[in-house]
Formats: sequence, structure tokens, C-alpha cells
Amino acid sequence: MTVLLYDGRDFGRDAWVEAVLHHFADCEVRVAPQTGDPADIDYVLVAGPQFTPLGTYPNLRGVLSQWAGVNHILADATLKPGIPIVRMTDLSLKTGMTEYVTYHVLRHHLRAPDYERQQRERVWKPLDAPMAPNRTVGILGLGTLGRDLAERLVHLRFQVRGWSRTRKEMEGVTCFAGTGELQDFLRVSEILVCLLPLTPETEDILDADLFAALPRGAYLVHAGRGPHLVEADLLQALADGQLSGATLDVFREEPLPVGHPFWTHPNITLTPHMASLTRPETGIAYLREAFEALERGERPASLVDREAGY
Amino acid sequence: MTVLLYDGRDFGRDAWVEAVLHHFADCEVRVAPQTGDPADIDYVLVAGPQFTPLGTYPNLRGVLSQWAGVNHILADATLKPGIPIVRMTDLSLKTGMTEYVTYHVLRHHLRAPDYERQQRERVWKPLDAPMAPNRTVGILGLGTLGRDLAERLVHLRFQVRGWSRTRKEMEGVTCFAGTGELQDFLRVSEILVCLLPLTPETEDILDADLFAALPRGAYLVHAGRGPHLVEADLLQALADGQLSGATLDVFREEPLPVGHPFWTHPNITLTPHMASLTRPETGIAYLREAFEALERGERPASLVDREAGY
Repeated sequence: MTVLLYDGRDFGRDAWVEAVLHHFADCEVRVAPQTGDPADIDYVLVAGPQFTPLGTYPNLRGVLSQWAGVNHILADATLKPGIPIVRMTDLSLKTGMTEYVTYHVLRHHLRAPDYERQQRERVWKPLDAPMAPNRTVGILGLGTLGRDLAERLVHLRFQVRGWSRTRKEMEGVTCFAGTGELQDFLRVSEILVCLLPLTPETEDILDADLFAALPRGAYLVHAGRGPHLVEADLLQALADGQLSGATLDVFREEPLPVGHPFWTHPNITLTPHMASLTRPETGIAYLREAFEALERGERPASLVDREAGY
Repeated sequence: MTVLLYDGRDFGRDAWVEAVLHHFADCEVRVAPQTGDPADIDYVLVAGPQFTPLGTYPNLRGVLSQWAGVNHILADATLKPGIPIVRMTDLSLKTGMTEYVTYHVLRHHLRAPDYERQQRERVWKPLDAPMAPNRTVGILGLGTLGRDLAERLVHLRFQVRGWSRTRKEMEGVTCFAGTGELQDFLRVSEILVCLLPLTPETEDILDADLFAALPRGAYLVHAGRGPHLVEADLLQALADGQLSGATLDVFREEPLPVGHPFWTHPNITLTPHMASLTRPETGIAYLREAFEALERGERPASLVDREAGY
């Protein structure tokens, strides 16, 4: 069995290669661009947007994605139908995302940037702010990540609303579904969190119309995928005061170009696509399990539904 | 029945007076310094450190504190033994504290200040950091506030340790008790949270010896009471690198004097004693319930044990 690894990341790459060598010790592991004969390749492990068209490998049996989002793999028209794609949904990914979003929700909720400003100016003044039971957080996307986050925000006593394509039910969360209920969902979301998968339906969903439907002064935490966001519309909504600020972890172009206006915008907090970094030790173990399930002819937990797009 | 209100706060004072007038509408409410005849006063409501010695009121039946900490009331030697003191432990107080500490724990845990620095320098670089299951948070004090916080941090998957004077048990939390177990508790606490009551035993507890017992580079979140902290020892521990930083909400002198070195210390985040602001609407309703329990000859939930000091 031969496994080919595409890993375009600059950060911590060695640890990933090591984890693959460890967990696939019974396979021949090749690291791109040292591919060898394409006919040898049984599985491809993909960690980033760069890889050779998957149709290159005539005997491919499966694609294992080290990312939760697989739109870049689905966009490869050379990938034969029926080849299973597995995406990362391991605990470390969920844990990291929940920590990240909870932090940025609380930062806005508690007016932490205002207190930091006051400290710089040596001003001692408690500020008025509602508590969690009087604050509504809306989560776009109630998949593995969205549900995990929703549970924790409910436990922190926030009013939590969730929106998803198909109807979901969650204790303590008011759930909305489909385009018909999107407006009702947005109307009450003072803090809006985007954790949607990227599909043709969700591309550009974070646009002027959506922002206009939120309560005035709403805050956006975007940790979905770059193409969800119409960047110019965000800048306009911030300029108008319709949005009071935004935390962004994903961008249309990554790394974000140094000349991009987001870097220096006073009401934008940005992070380098790190909200949910899968850790090598747990991440590769997870993909190894999925690989074994596929080899036994079973259906791994996070098999991608190509129709749905995630 | 006559109720006297001492309210030294600058912030939102009117809302408190209004809430008292509303919830004690069947009483005569006086607002200090308009005290009238001291013999009229049945109950005193205290919101801050300033009040006339309580022995001034010969017919006093009870003291209702709008703060959770009552050491300033217990320090009043003129208060006759047997006069019940009720302290604030309502939901809004617990909720606010849990939100505050969770935020500051996550801020350090996720290295948010490093990411903010990178944004200012337009650097795109994910940073290495453990996830919650590999991070230990130690909570000094497992009272109402400490327990509520511990539960939420466990739910966020942190390794949570707790220390209290008397032994407590909590699911998912490793509990330590008494002076004999303090060192074992400190040894593993990478993030140390202080939520202790202020008693003669806990005054100055946050000192050089305690800091030295923590793992090197530990972080302090102090939302207890000002006199827990030996301020010079904190500055030294930060200078030595034994502590990597601190969040402080309480101080020996409040408001913190404008010349104090904490204001400008690069590794200190400070807030103006707002971690747990009781909200008028819920806070006064809570004290009204305690007042009624006392009048019925019952024991309110948060009756202060003068011996224990809280």
C-alpha cells in the first residue's frame, strides 16, 4: 500500500510528516513532489490547497483530507466519482474551534477592547454591558463544529440560535433551517458566528444583505471559509456602523496579502487560519482509522457527501 | 420598616437606588448621607467600602451586602454579634465572574496577545499552543463562584484543579484542600485563578513563595480581593519570568492610583473591579428575598459565617 502526502503548510510540517510515517508505518509513504510512479499511489493525504490533479493517479482508492473543509478537493474535476473522500473532524479540530470562537465571542461581549483602551489611558471605569443571558449569539452551521460550540455557549448561559441547511434539534438552542428562516435567525443575532461549509449555496453568503438583516452594531466571528465573505461588503458595513467589528480567521487569499486593508482596520481582529489547527498526533491517528474503515469496506464517520459538498 | 442605603459607587448608582426603591417599596428607604434618626434604621444595604460604623444604629436587624466579599463589614468592630449579614451570591454575580475569568483564561491559553502583535506587524504565522485538554487551570477557592467557573472550564475541556480550605468534591475537577495540599495544587497550575474570600489566612496569599511553587511561566488571573496580592512580589515574579503575565481586577487601593506601575506594565491586563458586577434588577431582588427570610426568622442561603469570615 502506498500513501502520497501533499503538505503545503509552512508551519509544523515536519511534525505532520513524522506522524504520517508513524501511523502509516506499514505502508510506503511518499511526500510530494517526490511522487514516483503515479500508478503506485493508493491513497492521497491532502493538507492544503496545493496538489496535483487527483486524476493523475489511476489506481487511487481514497483521499484523506487533513482539513475539515474539502471544497478544494471537490473542485478537482479529474477526481473520479466513487472515490471516497474523508475529511478531518477529529476532537482536536472541534476543541480548537470551540476555544477560538468562545474567546472571540467573550472578547466582544465583555467589551475587552474598550477596557484595554481605558488601561492605556489610565481610566478606571466599569462599563455597561449585558450579561450572557441577555446576549444572543447566532451560529451559521450546526455541523460537528457548530454543535460543539453551541453546547458550550449554552453552558456559559448565552442565548444561542443556530441556522443550518437541514433542520437540526439541540437542547437549549433555537434552531432555524433553510433560506426561508434565515431572516428570522439573523434578526436577533447580536454576535454572528460563521462555521458553514463552503458550497455553491453558501459562497458569498456573508454579504451586504445579510449584514443589513442583523441588529445594528452586530459583531461577526468568521471561521468558516474565505469565499463565504464578500470583503468589500464587510468594509462597507463597518464603515456604516451596521457592524461594530469582526474577527476573521479565513480569507479569500491566504496568507492575507500584506497590502490588504483588513490588516490595519481598527475594528477587525484577524488570525492566520489557526482557529482549528488539527494536531498531528490526534489528526493522523484519526485519518488512519478512517483509512482502515475504508479498507474493511466500511463507511468512515466523516465520509464526504459529494452532492452536499461536505 | 426603614432601610438605609450606602452606595459609594460612581457608576450606575441611580439604577441601584431605583431598584432598591422598587423592591423595598413597602419600606421607608433612606439614602446615606441622609440618614435621619439612627434609631429608625432596621436594615442597612451596603454597596462599597464606605459606611458609618454600624454600631451607630441601635435597632439594626440586619446588614445586606451588595458585594460578595464582606471583609469590610466584618472589620467593623462596632457591629454587634448576632446581627445577621447577608452577602450577594446571586446568579448575575456568578455569571459575570465566570464570563470574565473564562475570557482571560482563553486569552492567555490561545496566545491572543501574540496574534494581536502579529496583526500589527502584518505577520501571518500560526503559533504553537497546547489545546485545553493539555492545559491545567488551577482555581483557588471553590465557593459559589469557583465551582461555577470550574464546571464551565471542564466543559471547555480544560484540566481543572481546585483548592479550598475545606475539602470539596466536584465531578471532573481534582480537588485539593488545606495548607498541606497547596504545594501539590500549585505545582501543576499553568493558569492560576484566585477567587478566594479575604480572611486573615488568605491575606497576602499571592506572594513570592506561592508564585515560586507554580510551573515556570505560569499566568495569574486575580479576581479575588485586593489584599490577597503582594504587589511587589508580583512585579518581581514577572521580571524574573517566573510568571508570564497577569490579569488583575482587584487592587489594594481602588481606584488604582494613576501613578501605579500596574497601569503600564506590558504583561499586566487590568480591569476596574468589574469582573462580577451585580446587576441592579437581579441583585436587589436577591437581597429582598434574603430580607424576607430574615424577617420570617429563617436562614437565608448566603448568611455570612462570621467565624469563617465569609
